[in-house]
Amino acid sequence: MGYHKIPNEAVRRLPIYLRGLLLLEQGQQNVSSRNLAEFLCVNPWQVRKDLSYFGGFGTPGVGYNVKKLIKQIRKILKLNVIRKVALVGVGNLGSAILVYSGFRIYAYEIAAAFDTNAKKIGRKIKNITVEDVSNLHTLKKRKINLAIIAVPQDAAQRTADALVKAGVKGILNFSPCCIVVPKKIKVMNIDICTDLACLAYYIPAS
Amino acid sequence: MGYHKIPNEAVRRLPIYLRGLLLLEQGQQNVSSRNLAEFLCVNPWQVRKDLSYFGGFGTPGVGYNVKKLIKQIRKILKLNVIRKVALVGVGNLGSAILVYSGFRIYAYEIAAAFDTNAKKIGRKIKNITVEDVSNLHTLKKRKINLAIIAVPQDAAQRTADALVKAGVKGILNFSPCCIVVPKKIKVMNIDICTDLACLAYYIPAS
Repeated sequence: MGYHKIPNEAVRRLPIYLRGLLLLEQGQQNVSSRNLAEFLCVNPWQVRKDLSYFGGFGTPGVGYNVKKLIKQIRKILKLNVIRKVALVGVGNLGSAILVYSGFRIYAYEIAAAFDTNAKKIGRKIKNITVEDVSNLHTLKKRKINLAIIAVPQDAAQRTADALVKAGVKGILNFSPCCIVVPKKIKVMNIDICTDLACLAYYIPAS
Repeated sequence: MGYHKIPNEAVRRLPIYLRGLLLLEQGQQNVSSRNLAEFLCVNPWQVRKDLSYFGGFGTPGVGYNVKKLIKQIRKILKLNVIRKVALVGVGNLGSAILVYSGFRIYAYEIAAAFDTNAKKIGRKIKNITVEDVSNLHTLKKRKINLAIIAVPQDAAQRTADALVKAGVKGILNFSPCCIVVPKKIKVMNIDICTDLACLAYYIPAS
């Protein structure tokens, strides 16, 4: 099956499987979808369904070859090269993102950080010197075409506009608002609130 | 249709619709699923499908009554009372969560914050005085049964254990690892990396 046929929801779960597989890689050669699901505390049938898009790589009674599956997921997610990412907004959330080590396993590297606050510009966080947002136009030359927006809501749209102008092709938006960009630009929105807002639904009334 | 039949994926989108509806509430009485989708930059058929669980409230040619739909979504998500939440871990991410105002529209209120770092304990952030994690046992008495874990990976499991012991029923876990809790406790995991890891999949090779 062509990789382009994998549904979006499954694509969004692939990094989670990849993380689990990388942890298992040291200890074992093969893994069943069931064991992988248990290890990651996710739904076993979901894992089976998602991995069915990789049908050819699983062997009945043996499971999936861990190294092979890692390689395939990386290939599908285009993680076989290191991807440079720019971060705009070095507030609390931006700083948390900057020091977060979890990106590395996906071969993403935060290569530049920008802010408007004069007190922050020039500061060095984890080997990254915070730059003035007026430098965003340099991203194209620096071959950075992915960006994370972690600015306050009222600055999100103009940040997105500047990123698009700078040649950015994909944006991860942490601002709790909708940004409008040309259709060819991929935006993924993360709102740390929405999952919290669902939590009460699942717990019994006290 | 009984509310319990709404699929998980749809439940997780309800807060996004609610946020949009609250913004639209001031300006208009009714909204079509299509306009709501456009306003939120989400998939129109997805909105239609999700809102179909609320079938009775939409009128052909008129759309959904905004106030009524807000009320129903709030009822389903059990957001009609203010929910107190405890935050464990006041690092960069925890601080970002603490000052984040977006929780309010969902009637969630961060009512307590905990850390192990002596330098942080006693500090006041947004009217919340950071407490020693050894105080977690007081949550039950304070009627706080939801918690956010924003501690480093190696402290996540013992934090979860302490929360469960303190009577917490729902956990939003920001640590990039799996926590094991009794089945009756609902855990939602947020990994800020996984969405970034998908971004490259959607953009053309440069």
